Amino acid sequence: MLGRLNHIAIAVRDVAVEAARYRDILGATVTAPQALPAHGVTVVFVELPNSKIELLEPLGEHSPIAAFLARNGEGMHHVCYEIADIFAARDQLIARGTRVLGDGTPKIGAHGKLVLFLHPKDFAGTLIELEQV
Amino acid sequence: MLGRLNHIAIAVRDVAVEAARYRDILGATVTAPQALPAHGVTVVFVELPNSKIELLEPLGEHSPIAAFLARNGEGMHHVCYEIADIFAARDQLIARGTRVLGDGTPKIGAHGKLVLFLHPKDFAGTLIELEQV
Repeated sequence: MLGRLNHIAIAVRDVAVEAARYRDILGATVTAPQALPAHGVTVVFVELPNSKIELLEPLGEHSPIAAFLARNGEGMHHVCYEIADIFAARDQLIARGTRVLGDGTPKIGAHGKLVLFLHPKDFAGTLIELEQV
Repeated sequence: MLGRLNHIAIAVRDVAVEAARYRDILGATVTAPQALPAHGVTVVFVELPNSKIELLEPLGEHSPIAAFLARNGEGMHHVCYEIADIFAARDQLIARGTRVLGDGTPKIGAHGKLVLFLHPKDFAGTLIELEQV
C-alpha cells in the first residue's frame, strides 16, 4: 500500500525564519512562503533530491498547527506517504482496525490532492498522512 | 550541503509490534529486527521506494531512546540527511553558529557511517542527523 515518502512536516512559529536556516545554514533550496487560508497554514518546502520537508506556520484563528504548537512546541508534525487509491486504502485500513481521522472521507489537502490522516495512537505516536498520487 | 533524506527515525517501545503494523496494516516491506548494543538500540527499517523509516527500540540500560521515551513517549525522534563531507559540513555549521551535539567529532553511527547530530533548538525542535555517504 505505502508508496513514496512524499514529505515530513515540521510545525514552526515563523516559516520565514526557519526557511532561512535551512537555506543559509544547511544550504538547501527552499520555496517562497505560500499562504493556504483554507488549511490554516503558511507553507514553505525544503527541497531534497529524493523528498521534501514541509515547514508549517499557523495561519488564522482555527489553525490546527496553532493547537499543535500550544501543546507540543515546535517540532515534527506528520509524515506523508503516497498511495495509488485512497478510497481502497481507507477501506482496507478501517477493516484492519486503524482509526482514520475526521469522518473518514478523503479531503482535498494542502497540495490539491486527496488526503487522509491516520490516528497517531495507531502508529507509535506518529501522525500519518496518506496522499493519493 | 544537504543531500538525500536518508531516513526518519521513530522511537517505539516494541520494534516487533510496530514493524508488524507497518507490514500488515500499511503493506510495507520491513527488515528483521537488528540489535545494535553499542548504540543502545534495536532497529527495524521500513523500506520505501525513495527513503526509509527507522524504528528504534531501547536496548540496554543507557539507551538514548529509553530517555526519549520517558520524556516524550513514542513518536518521531530525528531526521537524517546525507552529506558528502561531514568534516567540512561540521566546520561550516559551527562557523554559522549551529550547535553540534557531543564533542563535535563525527562518530561511527548505527549504519557504520560517520554521523553527527545537530541541536534540535537550532532547527525548530527537530533533531537532525547528518550522515556521510
